Amino acid sequence: MPNTIYDVTILGSGPGGLQAAIHASRKKAKVLMLGRIDNSSLYWAHVENYCCQLKISGEEILRTGRQQAENFGTLFRDEDVLSIDPMDNIFSIKLESGDTVLSKTVIIATGSSRNKLKVPGEKELLGKGVSYCVDCDAGFFKNEVVAVAGCRSAAVHGAVILTNFAREVHLYCEKLDVATALREQLGTTSVHVHEGVQIKEIQGETAVQSILLNDDSTQNVSGVFIELGAKGVLELTSMLGVQLDESMKYLDADKKQRTNITGIYGAGDICGPPLQMAKAVGEGCVAGIEAANYAKKIVVE
Amino acid sequence: MPNTIYDVTILGSGPGGLQAAIHASRKKAKVLMLGRIDNSSLYWAHVENYCCQLKISGEEILRTGRQQAENFGTLFRDEDVLSIDPMDNIFSIKLESGDTVLSKTVIIATGSSRNKLKVPGEKELLGKGVSYCVDCDAGFFKNEVVAVAGCRSAAVHGAVILTNFAREVHLYCEKLDVATALREQLGTTSVHVHEGVQIKEIQGETAVQSILLNDDSTQNVSGVFIELGAKGVLELTSMLGVQLDESMKYLDADKKQRTNITGIYGAGDICGPPLQMAKAVGEGCVAGIEAANYAKKIVVE
Repeated sequence: MPNTIYDVTILGSGPGGLQAAIHASRKKAKVLMLGRIDNSSLYWAHVENYCCQLKISGEEILRTGRQQAENFGTLFRDEDVLSIDPMDNIFSIKLESGDTVLSKTVIIATGSSRNKLKVPGEKELLGKGVSYCVDCDAGFFKNEVVAVAGCRSAAVHGAVILTNFAREVHLYCEKLDVATALREQLGTTSVHVHEGVQIKEIQGETAVQSILLNDDSTQNVSGVFIELGAKGVLELTSMLGVQLDESMKYLDADKKQRTNITGIYGAGDICGPPLQMAKAVGEGCVAGIEAANYAKKIVVE
Repeated sequence: MPNTIYDVTILGSGPGGLQAAIHASRKKAKVLMLGRIDNSSLYWAHVENYCCQLKISGEEILRTGRQQAENFGTLFRDEDVLSIDPMDNIFSIKLESGDTVLSKTVIIATGSSRNKLKVPGEKELLGKGVSYCVDCDAGFFKNEVVAVAGCRSAAVHGAVILTNFAREVHLYCEKLDVATALREQLGTTSVHVHEGVQIKEIQGETAVQSILLNDDSTQNVSGVFIELGAKGVLELTSMLGVQLDESMKYLDADKKQRTNITGIYGAGDICGPPLQMAKAVGEGCVAGIEAANYAKKIVVE
């Protein structure tokens, strides 16, 4: 049986979790953060819309945040969680190494995993022209030619927003699946809609240069936005009975970031849109303070 | 009559407003930000608990954020607002210069003003040992001697937290006004409680060195925490009929940062505790995106 009982254990290695760790540790809570740094989607990104830092790499952000949380006393373990079991008024957390840790509270900040296009070049060119977030990255493609993959409103909205930045926007999709009003709005823009055409490969050496289509033609582009939605939340949450929101895709957390399970908090993308670093950090701040305060009240016999 | 109609007008010059400006401008909304940069309480502060930046000055944060928002198209005017009047589906905003601007939405991000001790040295040594936020600044006083001014739970909690950092903590207060349990908890700590003794002056040249008390004795300290609560929100909000929260001190905003008045949003300290930069930025992100999306739907005839 392990004998350390943490006040706050944070699942996830992104900015929401880091901000929670910083605030909880500063309140002198015993804080453990679990997860590999390169599991955060931010690791591969460049950020220019987070106050108050000009353009910066996701990797640099995460490394600085980790050092900052460590300075305040947060302990890091680079491993994932297999299961969480409630035990009286604490949680038993099983790690992939086989170790078990005990914690009075848990903050789930594991982010949301974007659906992949699953074509060659997608993974290799992530952050080098391939993006899963128009709102985050549109500004990097001023006067460029870009492609968007997706059939639903997120893809169509994304393509429309991109016309404000890019010189030429191509939308590729098997069959558009959006409301009539949005389809009509799309028709009034300069977006080139290619229904029935799909991206087979993303090409480029050090950055995206072109895409190969399923009609075997090639289109030169410097950016590819993949807007296929996000995967559902972790199995962990359903194991715990944590309530999801109406979309059934995100944790249902209140303004204090509490879930329906006492002692379990959520922060960041896993709590739903906007999937932005700034929102994650704000929620992490609240979750970290709330969890640390709550943990102080728990007496383990 | 002015002929520019802004999509989003932001009141306040702090990080919540800046993050709102960044996100709204990136959505190509026409954004105006009103307020003097040194009106933000952050301007005089040093920040070490905001992910993911190590120690940085508030002034540097604000100047960088302003440049960032300007790069995305936000317009800045360094003046305050006298009144806001709803007109059909837009707002007419009167400025101190006498000018009037029109806007489809308004984000109130004017912060919360901490109550002052009103003694000599308080203003002059702000950010040089004088602080209004234990949670923000406790870490700067490791192994130092510090004073706390205040009689209520915020002051007592603050003094207790400071014992984790400072070598010696002195609490000055006319008469303690807290629940019995908290008073008893205070008794178990190393806090030196001086009931009936008040701080008359904060002394020091370039940084806090000592305090003069009302019994004419002097105590050497390097930090003075003033924990007297926050002032109520602006008159502006009551003029507009914006609903306050239960404490009647803060705006009542929902998770999308909407107030009860359509088109009016809130972000940051004015929406209540925790009064932290990270929370302000998170709320600014949501408010900026929501306001920009809503403004797009408003047609002005």
